[in-house]
Amino acid sequence: MPLYATRPTVTVVDQLQSVPVVVTGAAGFVGANLIQALTEKCEASVVGVVRPTSDLSRLRRMGGRARIVSRDLAEVDPSELAELVGPAQTVFHLAAAGIHARISPTELVAANVRGTAAALELANCIGARRFVYAGSCFEYGDAAHAREDGPLQPTSEYGASKVAGGLMAQAVGRQTGLEVAWLRLYTVYGPLERPARLVPSVLMSALTRRPLGLTGGDQGRDFLYVDDAVDALIVAAVAEAAAGELFNICTGVETKVRELVELVSEITNSPVPALLGERPYRSDEMWHQSGDPARAAEVLGWRARVTLRDGLVRTMAALQGSES
Amino acid sequence: MPLYATRPTVTVVDQLQSVPVVVTGAAGFVGANLIQALTEKCEASVVGVVRPTSDLSRLRRMGGRARIVSRDLAEVDPSELAELVGPAQTVFHLAAAGIHARISPTELVAANVRGTAAALELANCIGARRFVYAGSCFEYGDAAHAREDGPLQPTSEYGASKVAGGLMAQAVGRQTGLEVAWLRLYTVYGPLERPARLVPSVLMSALTRRPLGLTGGDQGRDFLYVDDAVDALIVAAVAEAAAGELFNICTGVETKVRELVELVSEITNSPVPALLGERPYRSDEMWHQSGDPARAAEVLGWRARVTLRDGLVRTMAALQGSES
Repeated sequence: MPLYATRPTVTVVDQLQSVPVVVTGAAGFVGANLIQALTEKCEASVVGVVRPTSDLSRLRRMGGRARIVSRDLAEVDPSELAELVGPAQTVFHLAAAGIHARISPTELVAANVRGTAAALELANCIGARRFVYAGSCFEYGDAAHAREDGPLQPTSEYGASKVAGGLMAQAVGRQTGLEVAWLRLYTVYGPLERPARLVPSVLMSALTRRPLGLTGGDQGRDFLYVDDAVDALIVAAVAEAAAGELFNICTGVETKVRELVELVSEITNSPVPALLGERPYRSDEMWHQSGDPARAAEVLGWRARVTLRDGLVRTMAALQGSES
Repeated sequence: MPLYATRPTVTVVDQLQSVPVVVTGAAGFVGANLIQALTEKCEASVVGVVRPTSDLSRLRRMGGRARIVSRDLAEVDPSELAELVGPAQTVFHLAAAGIHARISPTELVAANVRGTAAALELANCIGARRFVYAGSCFEYGDAAHAREDGPLQPTSEYGASKVAGGLMAQAVGRQTGLEVAWLRLYTVYGPLERPARLVPSVLMSALTRRPLGLTGGDQGRDFLYVDDAVDALIVAAVAEAAAGELFNICTGVETKVRELVELVSEITNSPVPALLGERPYRSDEMWHQSGDPARAAEVLGWRARVTLRDGLVRTMAALQGSES
């Protein structure tokens, strides 16, 4: 049962047909959506790597078409993992920790940097040609309409750990010939996102009329519908021009959190019982997280296709358990 | 017995008198020289952290004035280490691996990124106010007269891991208030450097007349005498303006390896039996590694004082077991 019928067309899907690919972080929000696209649209043969402690409910909802290998990248011996995974052409490295929960720097390094180094060694062991690294807008820190050649001033240890993983990937690529494509994903939302996150919280608040305590809502975010993020990952896996390159994956539009709340009110045709200002801003609040998507458009031919309004309608439909 | 009597004056030494400071990588080349300066000139109370497998011969030559704690930062629980180390004002984080030997990405991450995260947690546990991070010119990759705001394109996994550690330090600093000073050290040479390294090899070849196989020698390097590097580390520990900042620690002069050989010939008044061109260049050879030292001069008031000629004379004297 596809969650949505209107996934934008990826013109390159045939290049992945029947080809083995690996997805780390397979049980996560973006990972599960990517696996659905890879198996259903591209008919790729997918091996998903998940932590032994991961909640597999998203993958179960997706129909479980991927073969799952359960190992922690922060601890695994990459050559042992390679035996379990088998040969593959592409590694999508989505596994990461610490974006939602505050964890210690050593835990962040283990999950996000050691984990990336292990995924890179895995890629070399299994003969992969390309490594798609899912980076993050947190790598820039507080920045509006950031460009890829702009300064990296991560204010969070999470952001620093994501830069670190990407730099390791680039360096390994330069040393070994592995084709590394580094995508800085912005604020991804859509079906299967964790209910406590902003977009599903606001939508559920509108649907259930349960009040929702929020900050003042002046933070600007570049909201990216998950299908667009998945398309970018797939394009980065197959486009020749992506090798060795770095791209912002974003819409280029900055929307304040309170504007998001207003838009949800419009869509649901009822005021969201959101209590703006009830919660304090974080001490390290990022007022701007938006990117310039020009490079991805120019080099990859990728651009976001789903407007925030459409993406919210689709996400709401998925939350209501129906098809959009 | 001091190895050299003409150490340049550090005007800020009194600020460290009797104050407890921690040096990681204490058994290393720069670490041992730093500890000598801290204990002899600054009269600081020093705790050195070394790996259980470290060769302590450099520290023994220095007279062993530091208290030594033997734990591996890549594996230690930072709060347990804090118990052993005790309260301190400053952490000099010099521990790193992989600059000489090729080690795997996961091992590099463990030593240089996980190690830095552990040192940062240690700093917070022991109440340190300042964290001096010894970064590297390898963070830039191949770059002549690099500036601190220039692009980071490390070609080696080692360089990537050093950037990664520095970014973690900066992020932790932003989150916790720890004052992080990040110094990118260039090609440090001087007494106690490993004999197999370039400068001691060339000097020993001149002294013993034993032929030395080298590459073509066209690589440009920014050679920094170890006393200058040590001065920069100490200034970074005490100067208010160093907090949260990043500095190249270099001379600004790029010298080709074959020019170094010629200079040693001049100094020793005999041709070095160096076989230039006998060894191949590395596949990832860096043709330029030199930095712009203007920022360190402007903000810290630090500049390199020892010319390459003087530094080589002093190093040679130390190699001969005499005082310069």
